[in-house]
Formats: sequence, C-alpha cells, structure tokens
Amino acid sequence: MTADLLWPGDARAGDLFTDARVVAAMIEVESAWLAVRGFPSGLAGISDLSELVEEGGGNPVIPLLKVLRARNPSVADHLHAGLTSQDVLDTALVLCLRSVVAKTIQNLDQQAYALVSLADRHRGTRMAARTLTQHAIPTTFGLKAANWLNAVVDAREVLSASANLPIQIGGAAGTLAAPTAVAGSPQAALDLVAATARLLGLPDRPPWHTARAPFTRIADALVTCTDAWGKIANDVLLASRPEIGELSEPIAAGRGGSSAMPNKQNPVLSVLIRRAALAAPPLAATMHTAAANAIDERPDGSWHVEWATLRTLSRRTVVAAEQTTELVSGLVVHVDRMATTLAAAYPGIDAERRKTGGEQPYLGANDQLIDAALARAEGKPC
Amino acid sequence: MTADLLWPGDARAGDLFTDARVVAAMIEVESAWLAVRGFPSGLAGISDLSELVEEGGGNPVIPLLKVLRARNPSVADHLHAGLTSQDVLDTALVLCLRSVVAKTIQNLDQQAYALVSLADRHRGTRMAARTLTQHAIPTTFGLKAANWLNAVVDAREVLSASANLPIQIGGAAGTLAAPTAVAGSPQAALDLVAATARLLGLPDRPPWHTARAPFTRIADALVTCTDAWGKIANDVLLASRPEIGELSEPIAAGRGGSSAMPNKQNPVLSVLIRRAALAAPPLAATMHTAAANAIDERPDGSWHVEWATLRTLSRRTVVAAEQTTELVSGLVVHVDRMATTLAAAYPGIDAERRKTGGEQPYLGANDQLIDAALARAEGKPC
Amino acid sequence: MTADLLWPGDARAGDLFTDARVVAAMIEVESAWLAVRGFPSGLAGISDLSELVEEGGGNPVIPLLKVLRARNPSVADHLHAGLTSQDVLDTALVLCLRSVVAKTIQNLDQQAYALVSLADRHRGTRMAARTLTQHAIPTTFGLKAANWLNAVVDAREVLSASANLPIQIGGAAGTLAAPTAVAGSPQAALDLVAATARLLGLPDRPPWHTARAPFTRIADALVTCTDAWGKIANDVLLASRPEIGELSEPIAAGRGGSSAMPNKQNPVLSVLIRRAALAAPPLAATMHTAAANAIDERPDGSWHVEWATLRTLSRRTVVAAEQTTELVSGLVVHVDRMATTLAAAYPGIDAERRKTGGEQPYLGANDQLIDAALARAEGKPC
Amino acid sequence: MTADLLWPGDARAGDLFTDARVVAAMIEVESAWLAVRGFPSGLAGISDLSELVEEGGGNPVIPLLKVLRARNPSVADHLHAGLTSQDVLDTALVLCLRSVVAKTIQNLDQQAYALVSLADRHRGTRMAARTLTQHAIPTTFGLKAANWLNAVVDAREVLSASANLPIQIGGAAGTLAAPTAVAGSPQAALDLVAATARLLGLPDRPPWHTARAPFTRIADALVTCTDAWGKIANDVLLASRPEIGELSEPIAAGRGGSSAMPNKQNPVLSVLIRRAALAAPPLAATMHTAAANAIDERPDGSWHVEWATLRTLSRRTVVAAEQTTELVSGLVVHVDRMATTLAAAYPGIDAERRKTGGEQPYLGANDQLIDAALARAEGKPC
Repeated sequence: MTADLLWPGDARAGDLFTDARVVAAMIEVESAWLAVRGFPSGLAGISDLSELVEEGGGNPVIPLLKVLRARNPSVADHLHAGLTSQDVLDTALVLCLRSVVAKTIQNLDQQAYALVSLADRHRGTRMAARTLTQHAIPTTFGLKAANWLNAVVDAREVLSASANLPIQIGGAAGTLAAPTAVAGSPQAALDLVAATARLLGLPDRPPWHTARAPFTRIADALVTCTDAWGKIANDVLLASRPEIGELSEPIAAGRGGSSAMPNKQNPVLSVLIRRAALAAPPLAATMHTAAANAIDERPDGSWHVEWATLRTLSRRTVVAAEQTTELVSGLVVHVDRMATTLAAAYPGIDAERRKTGGEQPYLGANDQLIDAALARAEGKPC
Repeated sequence: MTADLLWPGDARAGDLFTDARVVAAMIEVESAWLAVRGFPSGLAGISDLSELVEEGGGNPVIPLLKVLRARNPSVADHLHAGLTSQDVLDTALVLCLRSVVAKTIQNLDQQAYALVSLADRHRGTRMAARTLTQHAIPTTFGLKAANWLNAVVDAREVLSASANLPIQIGGAAGTLAAPTAVAGSPQAALDLVAATARLLGLPDRPPWHTARAPFTRIADALVTCTDAWGKIANDVLLASRPEIGELSEPIAAGRGGSSAMPNKQNPVLSVLIRRAALAAPPLAATMHTAAANAIDERPDGSWHVEWATLRTLSRRTVVAAEQTTELVSGLVVHVDRMATTLAAAYPGIDAERRKTGGEQPYLGANDQLIDAALARAEGKPC
Repeated sequence: MTADLLWPGDARAGDLFTDARVVAAMIEVESAWLAVRGFPSGLAGISDLSELVEEGGGNPVIPLLKVLRARNPSVADHLHAGLTSQDVLDTALVLCLRSVVAKTIQNLDQQAYALVSLADRHRGTRMAARTLTQHAIPTTFGLKAANWLNAVVDAREVLSASANLPIQIGGAAGTLAAPTAVAGSPQAALDLVAATARLLGLPDRPPWHTARAPFTRIADALVTCTDAWGKIANDVLLASRPEIGELSEPIAAGRGGSSAMPNKQNPVLSVLIRRAALAAPPLAATMHTAAANAIDERPDGSWHVEWATLRTLSRRTVVAAEQTTELVSGLVVHVDRMATTLAAAYPGIDAERRKTGGEQPYLGANDQLIDAALARAEGKPC
Repeated sequence: MTADLLWPGDARAGDLFTDARVVAAMIEVESAWLAVRGFPSGLAGISDLSELVEEGGGNPVIPLLKVLRARNPSVADHLHAGLTSQDVLDTALVLCLRSVVAKTIQNLDQQAYALVSLADRHRGTRMAARTLTQHAIPTTFGLKAANWLNAVVDAREVLSASANLPIQIGGAAGTLAAPTAVAGSPQAALDLVAATARLLGLPDRPPWHTARAPFTRIADALVTCTDAWGKIANDVLLASRPEIGELSEPIAAGRGGSSAMPNKQNPVLSVLIRRAALAAPPLAATMHTAAANAIDERPDGSWHVEWATLRTLSRRTVVAAEQTTELVSGLVVHVDRMATTLAAAYPGIDAERRKTGGEQPYLGANDQLIDAALARAEGKPC
C-alpha cells in the first residue's frame, strides 16, 4: 500500500495497521486458536489482498476464511472452529493497536526526553507570557517547555492506563458455546481462550463484544496525545511567525518549500501536527457513538464502524507522534528574540508586579515548577 | 489501490477519489492552465504514485510538480506558472467531488424511482405504525415508503443546491498577483481563470481559499444523504428481525452468511448502510472545524485536514448510495406479516380512533400524502 | 431566566428560544389549531414554568396540556384534538428558529454593510499576506475584508436557503388520522393544517416527523455562519497581538480588562466569537446523528435529542452574530503597522514577484476582486 | 433555576453545576484563598445572579469580584490577591465536577448492585441471543445482564481513574508570580496553593492552565458511562417492543403516557437514556478540540468553550445515571416471552450446535461468565 497522498507524512506510520497488517493479525489469531488446540498452526498466508474484497458477509473474516481453507486444506476443518468473525477481527484490531501504542509510547518517551532538556536548559531564558493573545507577565521558555512536558506525561499516563487491551473471544454470541463444544467443557473453553491470550501476549478477559470501553478508552487516549501535540504545534506556529520569531522548526532538506514563493520556509511539521489534532477528536467521538449504539449480542452497524475509525485514528496518531518527536528534538530557540520582545513589552508587562509589589524578575516559582515537571517526567522510563 | 478491507463495500466506490484520481485531477488542472495560455497540455503522467510520497512540502502538489517537470521538460518552465499549491489541490478536489456528486445523484434518482413504486404499490398495505417503539395507530407500508422518499428527495435537493462547486484559483495569497504577472494584466488573469474554469467545466468564482463554505456545504449535503439512508436501514433492520419479519433485504448469492452460524441470513446491506450513517456526521463536523479555524491567507493545518476528510466522506457516501439503491430496489415486503402484526395489535392500536370517533380503517390522509410524495419526486428527473 | 453565566455574552440572545419562548410557541401552535377550527383561541398562559417540569411523558407538551386544560376549561376538550406531542413541539421549534434566523440574517446584513465599507475604504491599504504563518506576498486589508465579506455572504445564502422552515403536523404517526377524524375528511384535515400554517406564517408541507432534513439543514447553516465569523475572529486575534498590532477591537467601557493584570486590553469579542466557532460543529453533528438514528414513526431518543441541541446552537449563533457585528462595525485598522510590517518583510516578500517578473506593487487583481465582492454583497439587502 | 424544559428529566440533576452552584464554588475558592492567608473568609455571597451577567471581561470571575468587593469591604483588598480568573474558575469547575462524579459513582454502584442481582437471578432464564438483528444461538438473560454489568464496572473504573481532579492555581500566566509576591517566596506560594487544595479537599498539582488532560479525561469518562447506559437502554427499547415483549420498564404513575393515544405505555426512561447517549460523544469531542487548540499561557477561546460544555455534559450524565438506576432496579423480566421466542427460534437457532456437535442446552460458559462478572463487580463497593 502506498502511503495516503492526502495525508502527507502518512508514510511515517509504515505498515502499522495497514490492510496487510490487519490480515496478518487475523491470521495470527486463527493460528493461535489452532495452536492451543494442538493443530499445525503455520498457516499459508494471503498473497493478494484483493481476494479478500467481498462485501457479502459484511466483514473481512469471511472471505479470509475461504482463502485460508483453500490454501491450508489439512487444517481447514479445524480452522476457526468455535470462533465467530467478531472474535477474530476484534482480537486482530487489539494486536494492531498494541503496535500503535508501543510506537506512540516510544515517541512520548523521546519527546519527554527532549522536553526535559529544553525545560532545564531554558529555565533562565526569559520571554513574555501571553494570555488571550496579549502580553501578560514575564515567564521563561523553560517553563513553557515544562508545561508541554506535563501534557506529554499526562498523555503517556492516560495511554498507558488504557493500553493493555485484552483478548476478545466469546463465540457466536459471547456465551463461549461453540468453544465449549470444541473444548469439551466450559472450563476447557475458558482455558483455551486463556491459552490463546498467552500465546498472543494479551491479557485474558471475558468477552466484551458489546461492552466497548476498551476500544473507546484507547481512542480517547490517542486523542489525549494529539491534544498535547496540538498545543506544542500551536505555540511553535505562533512563535515561527516572522513578527515573533522566537522559535523555529528544525531544518531539513526539502522541507518547508512552496510551489510558488521561493522566499518561504514553512513550519511544515507543526502544520501537519496541528492538522492531526484538529482531526482526531471527532474520530474518538465516532467510537463512543458506536459504543452507545450497541445492541443485542452483536450490533447492526456500530460494530462495523469501529474498524476503519480505529485504523485512521491510529495511523494519524503515530504520524503526529513521529513529527512531534522530530519537532521538539530539533527545536531552535531564539533566545535573543525572546529577550527583545520581552524588553519591548515593558512597562506594560510589569504592571502586575508593580500592583502586587513583587520583586524583579518576577518569575514566581519558575524553578520549582520546572523541577517538578522534570521530576515527574523522570519517574518515567525516558 | 485495493479497496479498504475495513470498510466492506468500499469497492463499490471504484476509483472515485482514489489517490490516482486525485493525481489525475491535479494534472488536469495543470494541463488546463497550460492550455488556456496556449502551451502544449498533453502532460505525461505519473506511473508510480510512490514517487509522490513526500512530506516536506506539506502537500502532494510539490512532489507532483517535480515529477511532471522532469517528465515534461518542454513545458517545465510554464507548468504551474502563476499558481500556488492550493489552487491545484482545491480545484482537483472539486473535480473529484463532481464525480462523487454525479454518482450520488444518480443513485438518489434510482432510489426515488424504486420508492415511488413501493409507495404507490403498497398504498393499501396496512401495517402497525410505531412510535417510541410501541404500536401507535394503523398506517400503510406505502406511506412509510413515501416518508423514505421524502427524505431522499430532500437529500437530493440539498445535494443539488450545493453541488455546483466552483474553480478555486487565486495565486499565492488569493490576490491573483502571479497570474496577473503571467497574463499581463489583472483582467487578463481573471480571463485566464475563467477560461480554465470553462475548460474544466466548472463555474468561475473569485478565490475562496479561506472562505470554505463550498466545501462545508457539500460535506453537509453528503451527510444529509447518509441520514436519509440511515433511516431506511434502521427501519429495514427492525423489520428484518424474526419477531417482526415485515421486510427482507434482496437476496444475493454469498450475502448475509455467518462465519459461525449456518442458520443466519443477516441484513448485511442495511448493517453497512447504518454503519455509514453513524460515521458520516463527525466527518462533516471536521470540515466545519477546519473552516472555523481558518486564518491568514492560507491556514496552518485546517486546510490540510480537509483533503482526506472529504475523500473519506465521499467514498463512504457513494458506497452507501449504491447499497441503498440495491436495498430499496429489491426490498421484499411481507404483506402477510404486516397484516398479522396489525391484527394482533388490536384493540390497543384502535384506541385513538375510538377516542377521536374516527372511522375505520383510520388511515387519515394516507392516499393524499402518498400522492404528494409521488408528485414531488416526479418533479425530479427520476 | 438569567443569562447563562458560563457563556459570557449569552444575554445578547435575549429571550430567543428560552423555555418561556418555547412554551409561548407551543401555546401559539395549540391556539392556531383551535382558531382554524373556529374555537376561542385566546388561551390563558403559563405563569410558572416549574409546573411543566415533569419527566413522565418524555416531552414538555404533556404537562403543558394538563395545565392549559385546567386553566382553559371551556376549550379543554378541543385543545390539541387531533394532534400529537411531536406536532406541537416540532412546530414550536420551527417558530423559535424563525426568530433566530431573522436575527441572524439581520446581523449578517449589518456585517456585510460594515465589511463593504472596510473593503472599499482599505483597497489601497497594503499589508503582508501570510500563508502557513509566513509572509507570502503583498496584499491589501481591503481584500482581506472582501474575503471575510465573501464568507459572510456565503453564510447568508446558505442560511436563507434553509430558513423557510415548514409546519410539522401529522397526528400520532404522520398519517393525519386524528386530524381527519376531527375535520371530517382527509382533504379537510389537510386544509386545517394548511390554515394553521397560514395563521402561523409558515410554509405548508406534509409531515416530516422522521425525515429531518429541515432541521439538519438549518443547523448546518448556523454553523456555516459561525465558521465565517470564526475566520474573522482568528484574523483579528492574530492581528491584535502586540507583535503585529495591525487591528484592534472597538473599545468599550468595561471590556477587555483582566482580574489580575492592569495592563491588559484583551480582544474579548474575538475570543468569544472564536469560542462559539469551536463549539458549533459538534452540535450540528448531533442533529445529523439524530436524523440518522430515526426509526419507526417517531424515534426512541433521537427525536428528543434535537430540542436542546437546536436551542443551544441557536442562542450561541445569535450571540456570536451580535458580537461579530459589533466587531466588524467598529474594527480599528492600524494602517501604519501594516505598512511597517510590509516594509520589513522585503526583500523576502518580493521574491515571487522577482521570479514571475511581475510589476510593483504586485497586487494582482486586488481592485477587481474587491469590486466583485462588493457587487455580490450589494445584490443583497444590506 | 427551573430545570431545562427541553431536556426532560433535567430536574434529577438538582442543583448540581447550576449557575448558582458555580458561583458558590468560585466563592469557595476565593474564601479558601483568603483563609490560608489568615484573612476572614466568611464572604457575603451573591443574592442575585443577574448581577454577574456581564460580557466585558469575558468570564464570570470579573463581575463576581466586583460584587464581592462591594459586599465585603473589609477584605476587598485581599480578595483574589495573587490569583487570576482562570485559577478561580478552573478550580470551581473542579469542585462542581467532584459532586457530579460522586453522584455518578453512587449511581454506578447502585446499578451494579441491581445488575448483580439480575444476572444471578436470571442465570437460568434462557432467551435467544441476537446478532446483526437475527437469532443466533441461545443465551440467558442473566448473561445479558452480566454484560451490562461489565460495561457499568468498566465505566466505574474509567471514571474513578479520572475522578481525582486537582486544584488549578498558577497566577496570571502559570508562573505563580503574583502568589509568590503575595506569599513572600516561591516556596511560600507553593505552600499556599497546597494549603488551599487541602482546605478544598483537592489534590495538589502544578498549574495545568494549558495542559487540559484532567478535563478531557473526566469528559471521556462521563461519556464512557453514557455509552454503557445507552447499550442497556437500546436492549430494553428493543425488548419492550410488543412483538418481542421480553422486558418492561418499571411502571410509575404518570410515566409513559401519550398526548394522543390512550393505549400507549412508552418506555420513557430508556428513550431518555438513549437520548443522552446520542448527545454525549460530541460534547467530549468539543473538550478535546478545545484542548488541541490551546495556545500561549491562556488560550483565546478554547478555554472559554470548556465551561458550558462541561456543565451540559455533567448534568446530562447525572440525569441519565439516575434514570438508568431506576431502570435496572425495577426492570421487569418476562421470562415466559423469552422462552416462547426461544422455542419458536428452533431449529434455526440450534444450527451452530448441530454443526459443532455441542450439547444441549448449548449455553457454553454461561455460569462461569456470570460468576466472573459478579466477582468483578463485588470487588467494588456496591
């Protein structure tokens, strides 16, 4: 699959959650289900995804099984025995999400590392704080970076708390009836599910085919990440404006050019991060709307809307994660411009100090707040 | 591009708005801009989309131009002269949307045709009306179909009113400065734009690079379509339940099967239509959020979020359009079950009539309302 | 009702769409339905809204009828005869929306008037155009105002096209059965509805109880307005920054102060307009989600979600409308700062001109584009 | 404040998060800030909320301070000293949310209690499981209730994890500059904030004025609740249909009547719960969009959009919480109808069993899964 031309940077997500990866994950689930029952599980895969394009069953598991059975005749009768399509697809989505989470957390850690450095290094770099667009009082760039850091660490905490997605296997209607028939007893069926979970490296859990909090929670967590990055991007975009000039994106060959204007050096990373932050919230809302519309033992449409929504949200999050890591790791800080702006902001920016009788340089608990952010971040495996 | 495996039915949208089609549309815009200035416009195209995967410029026009210039050296200097990336991409999106609208309107017309027939044929097919899930009073299936028809005709009106998307060319910042330089005078620049619009078969209009109502309006209209289809799907899903059994989807080989249960005949078309109706509203909201975040003469992210959003919404709408056409064209009406349910609903369902002193069969203006819906629909080119 | 303290500016919407206004509108519908049947229609109203707080029927019409019947014993038997709750509430919502639309269009006209003046007056006021946050080429503030104007006129067109909301009366299940019983024949029932529509000053239309495009369309149109205002607010917010200083909000006593910093003069109008533009898109999405979840002859929840959603969206739109009118009518343009910034942007901002060989001042079709915007706006009753 | 007439049931939320409660909470914050500095803190309150309706400062703290200073002249100079509007309003929102969370968790516990009982009591109540609207295999109502229970416990976990919202005090720009001036040193300022947090019973935390995960997380958690309740409501709505008749809502005087049809007994609780579940997801999306649009040290609109959004989401969640508690606590289970439907579903519903060779009654791990759900719930303080 070529990367999405209408989402520049999409290639950064590599093959995470591509159709090919989803198919591989579905095969991994079917293989594990074979393996725990003692059958040969080295399934011959799919060479051409177009064989799986079939609307009739309403999900991709049905055409996949047809192809797998044809290619693996010796286990054809045992393949998928006891499972339902939702078991395979839900658990495959979980496997894809696991990779997405890992990649995202890796980036959050790298971002925290870079932000710790920025916050510490610039604890004495004074600049104008701005509220409601206007100069407010003095602050430091170090504290601004510490605030970014706090949001990144928040996102990491929220994502970690939601990350450990469990297996989802319940048979046709969440009763484990067919697995019980296959395994010989309810307990044996539960044991098979547990063994499959172990083989896939997933937590065990009773079926959650119509209780979708695990999926909404991860979606919310991914949006919490893009929120944090959106704030950073907004600040960089503003600070990159020539009238302000306090920050610049890291320069890379071929980045930031214009098709019309040879003078332009556009803050492309931030533009693309901000784009993702604008797009993400409604995707998580779609996951919630799906969960809220669940009905019966498998819902009539709200299950189906989850798949592509999770994929789109996932890939975009990873792309933005990588872009943000690059942005904060190479951010150029124009200390001189910060100083110039701050100097020009006097006496107005000094008005609160005069009113409160505070002392110059009126930076409050700047160092303590930065130290607190560093300590919090370093509690994390950066 | 293989159809999206996580959106079963995606293949129904064919090559509408694929990466390849967007690239072709961008080349069509560049070609037209060459042609109206008298240059050879038969541009050698792109053989490998992966050449265009490049994040650096933040949009796909920049890598496209690099390839086009290399492949078309004789017009390399004239290509894109006076244009900016947004001119090319916006107008290419317009061209892609034009095909989407045409396909959607064709389907709405076919749906109206089928619904006119259902409404007329079943004007005497009595059934229980249901409000807040409970039996209310008698109605007819003809009138239910007439209500579906009214929603389809509403959607067609809203879509038609928003369909005639104009060209978007303004140069680097919407001033037509570079086109003026290229053409020799402001009026000549305006004439070039008008000629390009004519060549592309689009209405002319001053630049709307930061006034995005044309795009939000079309997005809203597409959602108005999926809303109408969602209502039909919801009614069919309910009526397909075995306890009700008043409607069935058209049967097709390989449709509606289950990976676990040989007994199942699932209403797959309706499930997939309902899925689209759940997913569409937040995508239009994203377009509005983008428009509301516009700033400057080209916004820093909210422009970029529009492209993939429009594509996703478009393809899903067309898929649901085709599915709905198939659904209503082949819908199976179980007149007997409707009669049985209605008979069993007495005397409760007769309570309002007894209170109002109305006469049996208490169908009110059933015929007049059906006739009104038919007349309204037939004002349209069905 | 005190204005919403958590939505500063809410008082600007006055009593539009308050509970009291909704109740008055419901009484107006019931009165009209009495009047067209020849009954005394001067209903004694409601003195205490808390009498209507009752969840049991699931809508406010049921408690209203109880109170109205007690207060108006002479017409108690005729009141509401033939109608269902949805008829009364839907049509009352339509009446409330009519006032909202009128107020909004009045503001759009005033905005257009102010923007015509700004665009014309500042056609020669040169400033730096900015794309992706960076200086691009020269433009004029007149053309920027003309672009705002185009968006305002777009919004006015979209709103006007959706504004003429029709009556919604269909009886218990949209068949007009009870109205037919009351009136004596289907045609007489249709005539009663038509007469009621005339009395209320609304277009007549067959029941649209489950075909909700009239409501989604008006919601989309209101968001199209807030989108247009959001763009203006974003540009003003940026230009109000001290580093840029090209625009200021009109000064009013008591506006823009801070609880902490005596130096602050915050661009409060723009802040509050931007707030509305961020909040509006998901509200229209909720209306679409409701429409897409319609089922039966009255849906089980998706009807109920529309009422408060329409109200919130309406009041916020009117507040933002008034704020935007005040903003653009009193906007202060700092021509000197625009000139200074532009001068400092050379030679970079001149790079495209040098490449294209254009002539100074490189303003392209500035005058023609402004004239086109003025002409378009003046086709409207400003 | 009269309850919202357009949101039937709103009165169930009582005075939670009303304007009066927000004002009281703001006064509580200001009082605490006085108290920890040793000033008299028994502030004379506000008798008339309309005094606080003032747009000029863009937030309700500014007019509140004016009134408080006039009413409490002896502490007028010390009131609010060191704070900024956002400190007071954010922390007041936290206090309001704390009450909302407490009420919601109390309801979740009551729901869990009721569902434990339903699941246990009906572990032998066989019924047809339904997937994609069609009869699938047998299940029990006990297991269905256990699945609802799992979702309720999920929601409780997510809500608890996000519930402990911290104080938000940072001074004008999050540096604690003015608190430092007031307190005498950075550490003394931090100590004052910590003491204020203790007095208010909130966790301490460095300023999160532009890192809004605490608010988005609670919003996401509230939606996770309405998702869970929406699923229950959807199942009850379906099962309340006369053709199915497997469940009925608890009967209450005056509930479920119709303004037109004397026969109707509408499932009003479920209708209103479903309504809330449809409305909630876009409200949380608005919170994320706000967070993603944060900029500077106080953002220009995205802060302001949070207040009313949190309030609306909160009150609606509490209303739905109470309704769901009432619903599940009094749910009427029609065991006979479940049995009848199941019996009529043979032989189709037995097809999977015949294929897998499972044994009758083919209920799989029904008891084990119910037991697991009970055990999980009883780990909670029900």
